[in-house]
Amino acid sequence: MSQLASDLAFMSTPREQSARDLLLEAASQLMCERETLAVSLSDIAGRAGLNSALVKYYFGGKTGLQYALIERDLSDSLRQLRGLLTMDLSPAKKLRLSIGGIMRVYFRYPYINQLMMATMRDGTEEMRRAIADNFLQPLYETYAQLIREGVEAGEFQAVDPKVFYFNVVGACDQIYSARYVYKYVHGEDGFTEESQRVYTQQVTRQLMDGLAG
Amino acid sequence: MSQLASDLAFMSTPREQSARDLLLEAASQLMCERETLAVSLSDIAGRAGLNSALVKYYFGGKTGLQYALIERDLSDSLRQLRGLLTMDLSPAKKLRLSIGGIMRVYFRYPYINQLMMATMRDGTEEMRRAIADNFLQPLYETYAQLIREGVEAGEFQAVDPKVFYFNVVGACDQIYSARYVYKYVHGEDGFTEESQRVYTQQVTRQLMDGLAG
Repeated sequence: MSQLASDLAFMSTPREQSARDLLLEAASQLMCERETLAVSLSDIAGRAGLNSALVKYYFGGKTGLQYALIERDLSDSLRQLRGLLTMDLSPAKKLRLSIGGIMRVYFRYPYINQLMMATMRDGTEEMRRAIADNFLQPLYETYAQLIREGVEAGEFQAVDPKVFYFNVVGACDQIYSARYVYKYVHGEDGFTEESQRVYTQQVTRQLMDGLAG
Repeated sequence: MSQLASDLAFMSTPREQSARDLLLEAASQLMCERETLAVSLSDIAGRAGLNSALVKYYFGGKTGLQYALIERDLSDSLRQLRGLLTMDLSPAKKLRLSIGGIMRVYFRYPYINQLMMATMRDGTEEMRRAIADNFLQPLYETYAQLIREGVEAGEFQAVDPKVFYFNVVGACDQIYSARYVYKYVHGEDGFTEESQRVYTQQVTRQLMDGLAG
């Protein structure tokens, strides 16, 4: 973990944690509801029932809050994904589980890829490195390793793991815009629990079939 | 075409067309360079060397300009895609060409999917309908028909065309964020001409292999 990331993770004591958490949850809710990252600090503080000066106090500003939100949304799932690697399952089974896991993150936080990219775009070079090292690289490495294992086991054809990663993230990230397509093209109400299940199943199947070749 | 779309398309005379085109090109360039849709009307007018009152005159405002930019960026490619449907080629060949075609649009205008979704989010109900009817629906229908043809010809397994569409657009839309992943995860300089070719080839192969099942 970079110095920046550990500073952000450990700067808060337990009592402070709860105001910090409230602000992150408020930011997450507003980004979901308004379907945009452009949410003001005062709106976030207002939703959390806290003074907006606290955002500055806990996170240093908007980009710091965004970084902390990425960390909140991804850390547990990334740990679980990395844990998958050590399990005694076939590469195909592990890859299938990992795609399901990452899709659950996107159904819950549809803004997550856009949030990472906007924070890299607007952040300092140190912030960019922290996002790449702590989130993008481990996620990519998980897929690269699963594909290596599957190729070695003769289960997958040798695809470019970089491109496979983009295909997985691409399918996940479409969840953000899919609601409009469902509503205005298919005349359906966005994602229901059932259509989330179908989407995950079909995306996973198409990605896995593409690997089987 | 909706009333709104034809109004927007035909409201300008040939002499006016060139100032209108300059504004659209300026908006497109700034969205590419700054990697965000959040470009002010005065910056757009400034880049075009024109008075920002002209944006209001030609497009009615920011959302109208965004709609006109979507139309400029997509109309020719959509026509070509629809033309593919009538060609005497195998469904697999047509689908492969169509994926290459849509990826070229995204390499040129990486903001295009985000622009459509933001314009739907911020626009009137009429604007949402116009975007869905004139761009999203024809694109989806092209893929749905190509998949139907391929399934009938026994070339593809019966996948859900809605999900296939999301996989294609997802892989295209990742071009927008891929530059950071290339730079900060893989230590490479974004997309070169060569890596665009490889990306298109591999994405197409993975999508087509997923259909072959």
